[in-house]
Amino acid sequence: MATGRPLIQRLCIIGVGLIGGSLARALRDAGQVGEVIGCGRGEDNLQAAVRLGVIDRYLTDPAQAVAGADVVVIAVPLGAIEPVLRAIVPSLSTDAVVTDVGSAKGSVVADVQRIYGAIPPYFVPGHPIAGTEQSGVEASFATLFQGRRVILTPLAETSAAAHRLIQRMWQLTGAEVIDMGVRHHDAVLAATSHLPHILAYTLVDTLARLDDRAEIFRYAAGGFRDFSRIASSDPKMWHDICVANREQLLEMIALFSVDLERLAAAIRNDDRAAVLATFQRAKRARDNLYLD
Amino acid sequence: MATGRPLIQRLCIIGVGLIGGSLARALRDAGQVGEVIGCGRGEDNLQAAVRLGVIDRYLTDPAQAVAGADVVVIAVPLGAIEPVLRAIVPSLSTDAVVTDVGSAKGSVVADVQRIYGAIPPYFVPGHPIAGTEQSGVEASFATLFQGRRVILTPLAETSAAAHRLIQRMWQLTGAEVIDMGVRHHDAVLAATSHLPHILAYTLVDTLARLDDRAEIFRYAAGGFRDFSRIASSDPKMWHDICVANREQLLEMIALFSVDLERLAAAIRNDDRAAVLATFQRAKRARDNLYLD
Repeated sequence: MATGRPLIQRLCIIGVGLIGGSLARALRDAGQVGEVIGCGRGEDNLQAAVRLGVIDRYLTDPAQAVAGADVVVIAVPLGAIEPVLRAIVPSLSTDAVVTDVGSAKGSVVADVQRIYGAIPPYFVPGHPIAGTEQSGVEASFATLFQGRRVILTPLAETSAAAHRLIQRMWQLTGAEVIDMGVRHHDAVLAATSHLPHILAYTLVDTLARLDDRAEIFRYAAGGFRDFSRIASSDPKMWHDICVANREQLLEMIALFSVDLERLAAAIRNDDRAAVLATFQRAKRARDNLYLD
Repeated sequence: MATGRPLIQRLCIIGVGLIGGSLARALRDAGQVGEVIGCGRGEDNLQAAVRLGVIDRYLTDPAQAVAGADVVVIAVPLGAIEPVLRAIVPSLSTDAVVTDVGSAKGSVVADVQRIYGAIPPYFVPGHPIAGTEQSGVEASFATLFQGRRVILTPLAETSAAAHRLIQRMWQLTGAEVIDMGVRHHDAVLAATSHLPHILAYTLVDTLARLDDRAEIFRYAAGGFRDFSRIASSDPKMWHDICVANREQLLEMIALFSVDLERLAAAIRNDDRAAVLATFQRAKRARDNLYLD
């Protein structure tokens, strides 16, 4: 436990799920948060969060929940960020810093711009690259962000002090904090996260709609289990991500589709060298990335 | 250890890799094999197999290796099965039973037909649905097949005794043994195994060829690691599978591509209900399949 004054006196987490809950746990473990106020729509989940010691108390009205908080973390699905932002504006403390954890940043910045007419200096867009296919506060744990990366996409209007505070907050969870431009963030995430989810969802759905699907799935091997794991992710959350990052995601799907058709053509035309070269390049890239 | 006469007196494994090595280990652990002869092209791997106690001795010439064996297991990549079959024909014992472990069965049966002019009664096509992205005898382990399924695709010409012997052999490894038609096997595997490998290889290759690939991969999250694991599989082995199961694989790629384009169109046209419904169907199917 740190001694003296914690970094955050009163933290308000709106959306106490896997990400919001894990952040609260990590900051508590670091002894760097005074009081944690939870807010959300599901009272069962909020009661569980209190019971688990993740938050001290909760309010279901965002406007009331943010009153007196020095840091507000919006950890709701992307599609719910705009109404939350609207609701909290009137009751934010004058010195409050607000951040979010949305998996796409362009849409969040557009939401903020629409609501405020300009980017307020106290808003720091953020995105922790962490998570599992689980959701809800029961799935949260204090070490979720350890060794992971958190991307912040501060804007020209963002205050340096607000930026530093959110940087420090995420560093306390054991994460590496990196700054990136909004568009670049969305392109990188479309490639490494949004496209893979689309492929996994589509594959499982394709197979589930085959006539002999019961039998098909019975013969799925170990590789399929790992490959399809992300298709167990929260559909509403991923729906929101597709809507929010539409443009860049569609670009990546198009790139992928061209490559898939090129590989299919190589298989069709018995161009064995091309097939082998593709697999070799991919294996080399994957092996360079991970040791497992 | 079983007492009395083991099921197999002399087992010849051609291709002592992950599958061949694990089979030998499992049968040894069950005490159901007398002598195990290894055969392959890589002497380093064969020496390692002797050192690890997976095989008793080895020969690099398949014709010599099968002499006196009552069971011959061909566990080489699909593209190497035909030359092995040709090489061993003259020196097989009159009572030898031959099986293979190829991931596609239509091409193996065609190989056999081409070489023998007809399907010999002692040949039992087989396919254990097990494996990891690792290869080589060092990756082999005795419990690889426990709780897994092994598909046999016996033909009208296959002798009942040969079929029973191979069934019994795989049951001894802890596997569930199932019979299936050749074409049906290849369709099921195209869907659950071959297509996912194609998607994983293509995705990793697509990302690896982006301009900012070094940075792209740096932000890959946990989900990407699992999703892309199968892209670390042996390129030559998967090249062979694509060649061997071309027709059914291309059919599955086409099905998948239509579904991917349909989803992309829903995202493009802001048809949110269709996007959500796809993800929900997929999650339901995946969750029904696995508990993780």
